[in-house]
Amino acid sequence: MAAERLFERAVRLQLQGSGCEERRMYVRVSIELQSTSTPIHKRDLVVQLTDDTDPFFLYNLVISEEDFQSLKFQQGLLVDFSAFPQRFIDLLQQCIQEQNKDIPRFLLQLVSSASALDHKPVFLNVVETNPFKHLTHLSLQFLPGNDAEIKKFLANCLKCIKEEKLLLEQKLKKTEDDLTRQLNFTQQ
Amino acid sequence: MAAERLFERAVRLQLQGSGCEERRMYVRVSIELQSTSTPIHKRDLVVQLTDDTDPFFLYNLVISEEDFQSLKFQQGLLVDFSAFPQRFIDLLQQCIQEQNKDIPRFLLQLVSSASALDHKPVFLNVVETNPFKHLTHLSLQFLPGNDAEIKKFLANCLKCIKEEKLLLEQKLKKTEDDLTRQLNFTQQ
Repeated sequence: MAAERLFERAVRLQLQGSGCEERRMYVRVSIELQSTSTPIHKRDLVVQLTDDTDPFFLYNLVISEEDFQSLKFQQGLLVDFSAFPQRFIDLLQQCIQEQNKDIPRFLLQLVSSASALDHKPVFLNVVETNPFKHLTHLSLQFLPGNDAEIKKFLANCLKCIKEEKLLLEQKLKKTEDDLTRQLNFTQQ
Repeated sequence: MAAERLFERAVRLQLQGSGCEERRMYVRVSIELQSTSTPIHKRDLVVQLTDDTDPFFLYNLVISEEDFQSLKFQQGLLVDFSAFPQRFIDLLQQCIQEQNKDIPRFLLQLVSSASALDHKPVFLNVVETNPFKHLTHLSLQFLPGNDAEIKKFLANCLKCIKEEKLLLEQKLKKTEDDLTRQLNFTQQ
């Protein structure tokens, strides 16, 4: 399996639950295109929502080429599977540009049917607000990660952060050595 | 709940499965005394086996004061619950002292009934080998962690390593600033 990371960024969004106040929070959106060629050629768009401050927050969406056909039909999309990821990323970028405005024109919403994010499916909506109405450009349903998926996700985070920590340790060692050497040289 | 960490160290042990070759590996043993006072006073000895190189390796043992009575009876122990943790740590220390010897007198064994560590219970044994026989000083049964337990363990690892990484970043920044300042001062 080959995986190509297309997008990864913490994005500010509006959280909406039933019967609770709206609030803003940052969610890390990662978009990957996974492809396998054996036994058959198959491509999946994998989108993950995580929260840097909450290790147990994980929502997944996997869109296969077949799934995309029904999504395309349901939401009246005019692009094909290949062009979809970049259009989705463009919409996210528009939301990011306006994420600190009081009244953003493009807004990312995370909508839950429960009162809190309580291991229920959620919808990620890209909503444009014009003087006339709210226009939903895209609405994607995400499923909460189960224990096995969260475990796998955390193991991967741990692997990455261990590598980053090792690099930092090496850089610190090198910085100390370099500057001490320069200092000794200058003092002579 | 209050938790007191009594021991934490990567210890070399001998892995034994049924029908497979023995091999040596490092396992991190952590021993904690957890106590709650509400609603009733209760103490548990919590022992965890993990592998720094495998995020999914987790074996747990929880010994309550009641559990300890049957362990004491089964294994003919002469100490009470309060004294047990330190005796266990003493035995581990004896194994650590000899862990790099070809023929150690005290050896830690991890024994699985399966051919590999395949999510089956395992026994952690402290075995002394004298000229006459193998003497098992202690044999404790551990259960493999389920997805939810591994998830919780990994989230905790991630939290700790993030803190360590932040401290490293701060130290690197300070080291660069300090030494650059000294260098500028010396060059003047």
